[in-house]
Amino acid sequence: MVKTQSSKRDLCLVCSLILNIFFLFKVGGEWNLSWSKRAASEAEAVAAISCSGHGRAYLDGLVLDGNKGPACECNTCYGGPDCSQFFPDCAVNADGYLTPPLALSTTRGTYTPKRELFLVKFGSCGDPLFLEPFWMQQAASSALLVAGWHRMSYSYGDQSTISKELERHIRKLHDIVGNAATEGRYVVFGAGSTQLLNAAVYALSPDNSSSPARVVASIPFYPVYEQQTDIFNSVDFQFQGDTSLWKNKSDSDTEVIEFVTSPNNPDGQLNKAVLHGPNVKAIHDHAYYWPHFTAIPAPADSDVMIFTLSKLTGHAGSRFGWAIIKDKVIYQRMVTYISLNTMGVSRDSQLRALKLIKVALATGGRGIFEFGHEMMRKRWEKMNKLISTSKRFSLQKVMPKYCNYFQKIRGASPAYAWLKCEKQEDKHCFAVLQAVANITGRRGSLFYAEDRYVRLSLIRSQDDFDLLLHKVNELVAGEEGPQTM
Amino acid sequence: MVKTQSSKRDLCLVCSLILNIFFLFKVGGEWNLSWSKRAASEAEAVAAISCSGHGRAYLDGLVLDGNKGPACECNTCYGGPDCSQFFPDCAVNADGYLTPPLALSTTRGTYTPKRELFLVKFGSCGDPLFLEPFWMQQAASSALLVAGWHRMSYSYGDQSTISKELERHIRKLHDIVGNAATEGRYVVFGAGSTQLLNAAVYALSPDNSSSPARVVASIPFYPVYEQQTDIFNSVDFQFQGDTSLWKNKSDSDTEVIEFVTSPNNPDGQLNKAVLHGPNVKAIHDHAYYWPHFTAIPAPADSDVMIFTLSKLTGHAGSRFGWAIIKDKVIYQRMVTYISLNTMGVSRDSQLRALKLIKVALATGGRGIFEFGHEMMRKRWEKMNKLISTSKRFSLQKVMPKYCNYFQKIRGASPAYAWLKCEKQEDKHCFAVLQAVANITGRRGSLFYAEDRYVRLSLIRSQDDFDLLLHKVNELVAGEEGPQTM
Repeated sequence: MVKTQSSKRDLCLVCSLILNIFFLFKVGGEWNLSWSKRAASEAEAVAAISCSGHGRAYLDGLVLDGNKGPACECNTCYGGPDCSQFFPDCAVNADGYLTPPLALSTTRGTYTPKRELFLVKFGSCGDPLFLEPFWMQQAASSALLVAGWHRMSYSYGDQSTISKELERHIRKLHDIVGNAATEGRYVVFGAGSTQLLNAAVYALSPDNSSSPARVVASIPFYPVYEQQTDIFNSVDFQFQGDTSLWKNKSDSDTEVIEFVTSPNNPDGQLNKAVLHGPNVKAIHDHAYYWPHFTAIPAPADSDVMIFTLSKLTGHAGSRFGWAIIKDKVIYQRMVTYISLNTMGVSRDSQLRALKLIKVALATGGRGIFEFGHEMMRKRWEKMNKLISTSKRFSLQKVMPKYCNYFQKIRGASPAYAWLKCEKQEDKHCFAVLQAVANITGRRGSLFYAEDRYVRLSLIRSQDDFDLLLHKVNELVAGEEGPQTM
Repeated sequence: MVKTQSSKRDLCLVCSLILNIFFLFKVGGEWNLSWSKRAASEAEAVAAISCSGHGRAYLDGLVLDGNKGPACECNTCYGGPDCSQFFPDCAVNADGYLTPPLALSTTRGTYTPKRELFLVKFGSCGDPLFLEPFWMQQAASSALLVAGWHRMSYSYGDQSTISKELERHIRKLHDIVGNAATEGRYVVFGAGSTQLLNAAVYALSPDNSSSPARVVASIPFYPVYEQQTDIFNSVDFQFQGDTSLWKNKSDSDTEVIEFVTSPNNPDGQLNKAVLHGPNVKAIHDHAYYWPHFTAIPAPADSDVMIFTLSKLTGHAGSRFGWAIIKDKVIYQRMVTYISLNTMGVSRDSQLRALKLIKVALATGGRGIFEFGHEMMRKRWEKMNKLISTSKRFSLQKVMPKYCNYFQKIRGASPAYAWLKCEKQEDKHCFAVLQAVANITGRRGSLFYAEDRYVRLSLIRSQDDFDLLLHKVNELVAGEEGPQTM
């Protein structure tokens, strides 16, 4: 009897000891966590809020009355407290970022779009949520804990506003992707490529010249080039529209600054500079020059090259971009501009960019670029297949090319579908898509092109793309049936 | 014998069970942590790097060859791998943020300071590290864990680029501090107050006028007003220097925009607008209008008011500021400007600002403002006491005032000492301080004042302030002795 009791006690003791060893082993790693635990728990609690796969809750989301945590923010056409309601009749968003200011004066007069009312469209850069699933897969390696006292100062240890560690990682990334020459070049950071576009225009414009530099771009082009140059209304530079008008004037005394977008927004073409001569300077906007969107035939090698985190990792909200500059004086002028405009780029954005680029580098880029390219290639294939059955609509041609990064010929995977309404009477393709299929694209005239064109974003969330495809399918299938327009 | 053995086993079992319970209790909170653990551990490991209390290691610090973690970044006059070496003969920094571009053209010609060479001084806003110890005390509540997929989009749920949750907390903070009227006003965010200064100048300038708006400020004033207005070289506005020149002209047809800095940088005075009339608009820069630096006699209530996180929480590196605007059209013009300049403010900065302002609000502001005011009051008292024994130098007068926030008359606590060299021959006070005591201040002429003045920053780290006080002590003590100049 005594022995049996003793055996049971022994068993209990052994179990208890095993449990202790388990505890020690299991939680050893976090045994030392102290002040960071609360923040970590908060973030995990928010991440665990279910939004039915059609939305997301964020740490800084609105906390509605009666709720403890932040509310779900639902994808387009989804609603309800947990985003489980689907609204099949709602307009699908194949557009980009909207912002609500009023009329904006430009060289072409004042923007007063009828349909958009308070929603004047800036940016025109889609909303690159296609990479969100990648970052959810990389949850542990891409999370970042920021201490309350992190980088309070204006400057880094070397008195600059540029993180040298981040610069080093950016150079490394270009080296492994092979999309830009960085050796012997200077790197300057900006709040997204947006801020760098005007910093470059400023830096390349003449000082105290009697005649302002003329800023041009090849149609179709990204509308911000015009909108931004116009809003600054500088004595030193002016937007002048289409590059082709300056083809035979480039030997004149006027300084010309040409925006070269490669791949181009909206049509994905690998554009090259059109103008040449001693008075011509080019700003190469390489926002989309990553294996997600294009083959990389060779490293870009021009004097002023601009890149952005938005289209590399998908973190548009972080507002982080960089320029690679050959000439020291141009670099210094850009640094001066960024300093007086915003005193450098948020150190929080720089810290986040460093973390994300480290994850991208971890597998020599394979992880993120294979994910991104596969996603974009499949989306393009589906869209292309659908539209190819249509007589009413067509898409731009993007040829497969040899990619030095993947070391093979790879299928097209552009960020945007540049859709054309082929019928004579469909002059306002944007309106056709809205009326017939409830698709909100971006009208061609915003890109200085005909309104026979509409840009559809392919880089948005999976929900947005699925819905777009569904509506395009209905649109094309309905072509032969009764016309609703 | 058996009983004794059995008792021992019982004791072991009890101990082991207690240990089990302890483990369960101790680690219960973090039992569920999964993907956030790695980031939390990384941050705690970096925070644990010892830099002898005279420096700090950061997550994004340079990783030197052979090291695993980032290197210590030492305070001014400290060095060595762990910042334990003190260099007593080094120059004490009582200046602000430096950035290394070359010459900058302004309305007063080109800046080519002799001593600074590559270091042209922008910003002039000290480096507000005096609050760093506060944030180290609040380690748990101020830490922030950012998930890899956090806010990738350009916009928040409401399609804007402004976090409504942050806006709500900012309004709440102004309400409890009583330093600004926010009801019925609009709030717009910028990358620090810096970006908002020019956004406001743009918004208040006339469109398509034959004559640009004249931008003025009262001497002594913050140099960025001039440098920034000049660099944009706009058709619509021009910097014109001292307000007093426009006192009798404000009834003319020319539009005038007056910068009103209250408390003033450099001298801490609660300035009021000097110009009035139908063509005069004012931008109130209230960067320092917080209980750290001044009594709060009443809520500021003007049309355009600008604030910044830098001087509220000390997070200059986060580049976050906001403007409170009465008029809808001015607000919309500022939103347009910020959109086309940088597409809004980094969502990472906004998230960080929210976290920090939540901590500030937690105790009705008492925690941070009592800490900040005590720190600044003591620093000012020490500096004032020293200088009051001098015949060669003097300081600005700052009168004690009734503070609505603390509900009592409180001692002066300005952010800067505006030092004057009283001797006839000491026309270049900056040079006197450098030569006699190795103190780097900011010369009066940068503020449009006489070079008989120098601004000394009192908001820097404790090391910088201690060293400054030590050198000022030597300087004053040596007055009666042999002159070195």
